[in-house]
Amino acid sequence: MLRDDFQAVRQRSLQLAAPLSSEDCCAQSMADASPVKWHLAHSTWFFETFILEAREAGFSPFHPAFRVLFNSYYNGVGAKHPRAQRGLLTRPSLDEVKAYRADVDARMLRLLESENDGALSALVTLGLQHEQQHQELMLTDVKHLLAQNPIAPAYDGEPIAPEAPPLPMDFLEFDGGLVEIGHDGRGFAFDNELPRHRSYVAPFTLASRLVTNGEYAAFIEAGGYRDPALWLAEGWDKVASGELAAPLYWRRRPEGGWDEFTLHGEHALDPARPVTHLSLYEADAYARWCGARLPLEAEWEFAARLASIEGGRLHPGASAGDGLTQMFGACWQWTSSSYAPYPGYAPAAGAIGEYNGKFMVNQYVLRGSSCATPSGHARASYRNFFPAGARWQFTGIRLAR
Amino acid sequence: MLRDDFQAVRQRSLQLAAPLSSEDCCAQSMADASPVKWHLAHSTWFFETFILEAREAGFSPFHPAFRVLFNSYYNGVGAKHPRAQRGLLTRPSLDEVKAYRADVDARMLRLLESENDGALSALVTLGLQHEQQHQELMLTDVKHLLAQNPIAPAYDGEPIAPEAPPLPMDFLEFDGGLVEIGHDGRGFAFDNELPRHRSYVAPFTLASRLVTNGEYAAFIEAGGYRDPALWLAEGWDKVASGELAAPLYWRRRPEGGWDEFTLHGEHALDPARPVTHLSLYEADAYARWCGARLPLEAEWEFAARLASIEGGRLHPGASAGDGLTQMFGACWQWTSSSYAPYPGYAPAAGAIGEYNGKFMVNQYVLRGSSCATPSGHARASYRNFFPAGARWQFTGIRLAR
Amino acid sequence: MLRDDFQAVRQRSLQLAAPLSSEDCCAQSMADASPVKWHLAHSTWFFETFILEAREAGFSPFHPAFRVLFNSYYNGVGAKHPRAQRGLLTRPSLDEVKAYRADVDARMLRLLESENDGALSALVTLGLQHEQQHQELMLTDVKHLLAQNPIAPAYDGEPIAPEAPPLPMDFLEFDGGLVEIGHDGRGFAFDNELPRHRSYVAPFTLASRLVTNGEYAAFIEAGGYRDPALWLAEGWDKVASGELAAPLYWRRRPEGGWDEFTLHGEHALDPARPVTHLSLYEADAYARWCGARLPLEAEWEFAARLASIEGGRLHPGASAGDGLTQMFGACWQWTSSSYAPYPGYAPAAGAIGEYNGKFMVNQYVLRGSSCATPSGHARASYRNFFPAGARWQFTGIRLAR
Amino acid sequence: MLRDDFQAVRQRSLQLAAPLSSEDCCAQSMADASPVKWHLAHSTWFFETFILEAREAGFSPFHPAFRVLFNSYYNGVGAKHPRAQRGLLTRPSLDEVKAYRADVDARMLRLLESENDGALSALVTLGLQHEQQHQELMLTDVKHLLAQNPIAPAYDGEPIAPEAPPLPMDFLEFDGGLVEIGHDGRGFAFDNELPRHRSYVAPFTLASRLVTNGEYAAFIEAGGYRDPALWLAEGWDKVASGELAAPLYWRRRPEGGWDEFTLHGEHALDPARPVTHLSLYEADAYARWCGARLPLEAEWEFAARLASIEGGRLHPGASAGDGLTQMFGACWQWTSSSYAPYPGYAPAAGAIGEYNGKFMVNQYVLRGSSCATPSGHARASYRNFFPAGARWQFTGIRLAR
Repeated sequence: MLRDDFQAVRQRSLQLAAPLSSEDCCAQSMADASPVKWHLAHSTWFFETFILEAREAGFSPFHPAFRVLFNSYYNGVGAKHPRAQRGLLTRPSLDEVKAYRADVDARMLRLLESENDGALSALVTLGLQHEQQHQELMLTDVKHLLAQNPIAPAYDGEPIAPEAPPLPMDFLEFDGGLVEIGHDGRGFAFDNELPRHRSYVAPFTLASRLVTNGEYAAFIEAGGYRDPALWLAEGWDKVASGELAAPLYWRRRPEGGWDEFTLHGEHALDPARPVTHLSLYEADAYARWCGARLPLEAEWEFAARLASIEGGRLHPGASAGDGLTQMFGACWQWTSSSYAPYPGYAPAAGAIGEYNGKFMVNQYVLRGSSCATPSGHARASYRNFFPAGARWQFTGIRLAR
Repeated sequence: MLRDDFQAVRQRSLQLAAPLSSEDCCAQSMADASPVKWHLAHSTWFFETFILEAREAGFSPFHPAFRVLFNSYYNGVGAKHPRAQRGLLTRPSLDEVKAYRADVDARMLRLLESENDGALSALVTLGLQHEQQHQELMLTDVKHLLAQNPIAPAYDGEPIAPEAPPLPMDFLEFDGGLVEIGHDGRGFAFDNELPRHRSYVAPFTLASRLVTNGEYAAFIEAGGYRDPALWLAEGWDKVASGELAAPLYWRRRPEGGWDEFTLHGEHALDPARPVTHLSLYEADAYARWCGARLPLEAEWEFAARLASIEGGRLHPGASAGDGLTQMFGACWQWTSSSYAPYPGYAPAAGAIGEYNGKFMVNQYVLRGSSCATPSGHARASYRNFFPAGARWQFTGIRLAR
Repeated sequence: MLRDDFQAVRQRSLQLAAPLSSEDCCAQSMADASPVKWHLAHSTWFFETFILEAREAGFSPFHPAFRVLFNSYYNGVGAKHPRAQRGLLTRPSLDEVKAYRADVDARMLRLLESENDGALSALVTLGLQHEQQHQELMLTDVKHLLAQNPIAPAYDGEPIAPEAPPLPMDFLEFDGGLVEIGHDGRGFAFDNELPRHRSYVAPFTLASRLVTNGEYAAFIEAGGYRDPALWLAEGWDKVASGELAAPLYWRRRPEGGWDEFTLHGEHALDPARPVTHLSLYEADAYARWCGARLPLEAEWEFAARLASIEGGRLHPGASAGDGLTQMFGACWQWTSSSYAPYPGYAPAAGAIGEYNGKFMVNQYVLRGSSCATPSGHARASYRNFFPAGARWQFTGIRLAR
Repeated sequence: MLRDDFQAVRQRSLQLAAPLSSEDCCAQSMADASPVKWHLAHSTWFFETFILEAREAGFSPFHPAFRVLFNSYYNGVGAKHPRAQRGLLTRPSLDEVKAYRADVDARMLRLLESENDGALSALVTLGLQHEQQHQELMLTDVKHLLAQNPIAPAYDGEPIAPEAPPLPMDFLEFDGGLVEIGHDGRGFAFDNELPRHRSYVAPFTLASRLVTNGEYAAFIEAGGYRDPALWLAEGWDKVASGELAAPLYWRRRPEGGWDEFTLHGEHALDPARPVTHLSLYEADAYARWCGARLPLEAEWEFAARLASIEGGRLHPGASAGDGLTQMFGACWQWTSSSYAPYPGYAPAAGAIGEYNGKFMVNQYVLRGSSCATPSGHARASYRNFFPAGARWQFTGIRLAR
């Protein structure tokens, strides 16, 4: 039931904000990240702007200024507030944003009672998928914020324990061939997963699990960040300038070894869990160091079709079992594929169509899902994308050969 | 009574924060400005670090991390948190900072009951004067923050009304000569007001009041921002790049005329009140435009000795009466004097001595006081100082010839 | 004969520098461009470092400092001089660099007389192909330099005349299918053209000629730079900031219309010639504006196999004839393919291997060749690559659908 | 004779350029420095624009574009070429600029034969003083350029030998009092030396000579660059970022000790010669380290009236003799006085008046003259000025107490 889904997803956003103070929800730690309050408001703005405004009789906005403040679309919907200044919006307060959510929710539920056409369904579903994307960002953005604080506050006070070591990494063989790639039409998909099309994939192997913290620490120990031959030139520039020296939230202990900052606070690095929060440059250098490479997105998708989908944690767990593990629910996996339109790709009409196509340059595709991806949001054809230097998402390394 | 002064000043800081939410108190709108919460904590840190730590038996810090988080002194007191990231300190919360204040206040009051020497008195007085400086910054910093918000929230909802036009500007004559400049030793002074010393001041005239909004609007209308001959080269670069086009909080109305953002919200520019929030470059260009100049700090101090001291408003009022008006309590007045040590200047020993001397380069002296200066903090020998481009203080123009 | 090729290519570099003064050859107009003198020296350094040093008995460098000054490889060959400061190398003088060339040439010719193995041949051929790449850069880099000069000096004083209008643009149909892509092994190829591999190409159409200046001027006239819906988000940011407003060397005449700066000096824009010196962002926006797209590199290569190869001019000429024209010899053609390794790609061992692989991120492939590409350097499998914002090469637009 | 002076000064500029190639004369190593060719042309442009254009019958410019290319005055004389791009002007060539000089010289000499009024004399004298300022800049700018080259080319191949150690530093006592400061009207002065005015100077002492390399090396050895208590806050920021670590042209030898790059090439640091090429921040920190301070400009001028004036070398020599030495002819001496107008200062009318006044903010006065100051250009009232961070002039340290 769409109505139930609506309530569940909307409720989930508030649950994610629950452990946070209004101060935590207001601050912005970098231009790429947004305040939690902004996410709560922007996902609401989506429903107000694209659905209520078009369909509600006698529509009147909850607050006229919110149209600008919580718009992230530069084009079809007029002015927007500068992205890097979202943390300065101390007003409206978190309570006012919650009131905004409650008001829009009530109106949306009324609308869903009275109208029932396919176009509305499609828009509501899109809005909920959009909100789920922001749910993951709420966690990664607030993690980045809390990590800037020398006190290292935990989002969730429950500590996490070391996990059992995974099985050795195995390289599973795939035949490839002339295969179909892209969403198969069953259920929701973003426009960038379409159209389904043919692609030739040469035979390849894929690692049975993600690279672990322990394996990545060995790479650092072996001088991985000191050998330019391992790095893409752009990556080496960042290494040489000191911007890249270890995964984003690793902190070297004075006495040796590493701690890791997580949503559960700072704790000793667990060698069994997958390494996370690294750039494409680091993933690529690691792969080169061990004679492997990153997968193509078509290879990943071809292999992933039978993988099981998990998730719903605040930090990625270790691989368990054999076969192809951790395809979903641990870390997003960098591919070597740049984010580009599929053959025949056509964006949706209007402002909604701004969604994906305009970002198709200088970004790289990540496949799978992470521990922070909302339940029901992952699928084999999903195309996540970030610039090669982005590290604040739960990104990890799946090797291929 | 020092004890009463202590309670009054400490209480005043909390009163200034009272109209603000915890979100308002946490955000930082630029590196030069600090969050209100940081001001509340830092002024408390001063008492804890420089007094309690030295004198309290069995001293133990309220929270060990606060030593770094709320330190603004790089040298004598160890590490400090990066200035530009003060807005990311969502923890400790505003409530925790208030608890920190209450704890330090109670311990300070106990100490003041048991000890009573001159050195303690001097340090407490310094701490209170220091806190008063931060009280003025709390207002100017939060004004800058609120001004970034498209909703233009008021710090104080009470609107302000246009004032009566002042008398025409008169130029009062002063003889000058070989005069004594600097603090005369009666009451508190910062080290930069000392030593009192002789200085030769040629005969000069000083304007009877500050330049008004109406007069400054005429300068803009006459093309003041389009004629490079009026500007210092550095100032013209900022005009040419668009950084300077009107006083900081003026906003041109679509239909003509100006609004001004104030702590009382946005309202129509009042032509009778003094122009405020402008850089030395603008003050200097305006003076050149009308055939005058900015005063030297020695001239200003020589003339100010008999002026009356007012203040305690959230926006500067219009000049009333004749003679030398608005020397105190309206706007800080740019002088053409760079901030430099007086002959024979010696900073205090230890970390306290970092206070003033190290800033004596590339800053300009402002004299007088502003509407936001706490009562009891202003005096004729006071030397305020800011870089020539700073505009977020209540700065104004006093002409000389 | 390799020896003849060696002499011809080496001689050609000096011919390209002949119209320039020693001042012209020394200056550097941006970090991406290098001085002509540096190109002359660096291409010589390649032969000295990778061939003479390894094979010459009793090798001694022409000048020990040149090893650093003219190295562009950060890794295998030690230190290098900062790229952005190449224009500050007033010493060695142009005459000294010519002496360096003559010395290395004489030693190379002696070596080629005495040794004759395949490995030497391969290295010399690589050095000559490398020098030809720098020959094209000599022209594009000096064009950028001369364009900064308000006097608009011509590299070649000979004026160019308007050409006859081309035939209307036609879209030619190609079947595609499971095709072989990459170099076929006949003659020289860079490592990035290998290995030859299968790729599935869906049916497509390709424009019969490049987009002309006249057509692109109509796009500007129609508001192409004012509609964000046409642009990739990164491109629109550059439009909004004023960085992109017309092709790099177009200059709007006060009285309307355009002039274009060319290596022949500044002249009225010729509507018949292909538009050139634009970014991927502009090429992509133009394509979207007219309901087309940029080709994939596999499509381009598939279509190009039968095209004829021309070149050797200082400015691209208009399309002549029908069928598939201007695939080579006019402008490099932006594709939508990011620069990535072919399946199974393995870089060469040692410093030589740094050549291509390390740049395979955040760059886009251009196909074909330009008017400035040396004769004999173009082929259908050639993969040129630049960042999406690069405009100083002879880049143009081939549309696909 | 003005005519003889004209020929001598104009000839001197060419002599200074004589050891340099046309490439050396074209390059620009930073925005603050200009190419020698630009200096040669700009000083010529001054005579053409301010004298010939106003007085020559049937005036026609040598080349219309030079009006923009060689203008450094933004206001009265129209457009100017961007300062940071002067090194891109490979055309006109050095030979063309020499022809420009010869043409303007011939026309100026004809004019000086036929006209003889005081206004012309004054303008020609101003033009010659202006050219002498650029002569010093030609040396300091080309020194900065050559210093960027890893080959470390010498401007003058003649090596320099260590000098005899100077006498110990003595602090000479001065009474001060109510003194007259500023130019006394005998001979030429720039407008910023006027009007002569009264100033009160408290009793002070001044060091008998400049600080030597040996003394400054001891400061570094003692940790001078590691103790923030010695530094102005702005200076410490530059130390902390690595921008300041030793005087500009000092280079630490791998085996210990220092080399210094000079116009005579790189050689072992001579402990007897004065330390030079340092910022006000470094001069101030050194003074604080040894319990002294920098002089005020009024103190310096009061003391300098009887000092002898020397100069005309390419590197400063050691102090010789006793009493007050090295006031002129070795290094410009940082004062703690910001560059500000004298009481009653009025700039000249018109474009000429842009000369000095518009720079009177955020700069500090240097007094004396340097080894590179042209003969006849130094005097006790001369006010040189640079930003506190400028290091490429021959700046040194005179202590006061």
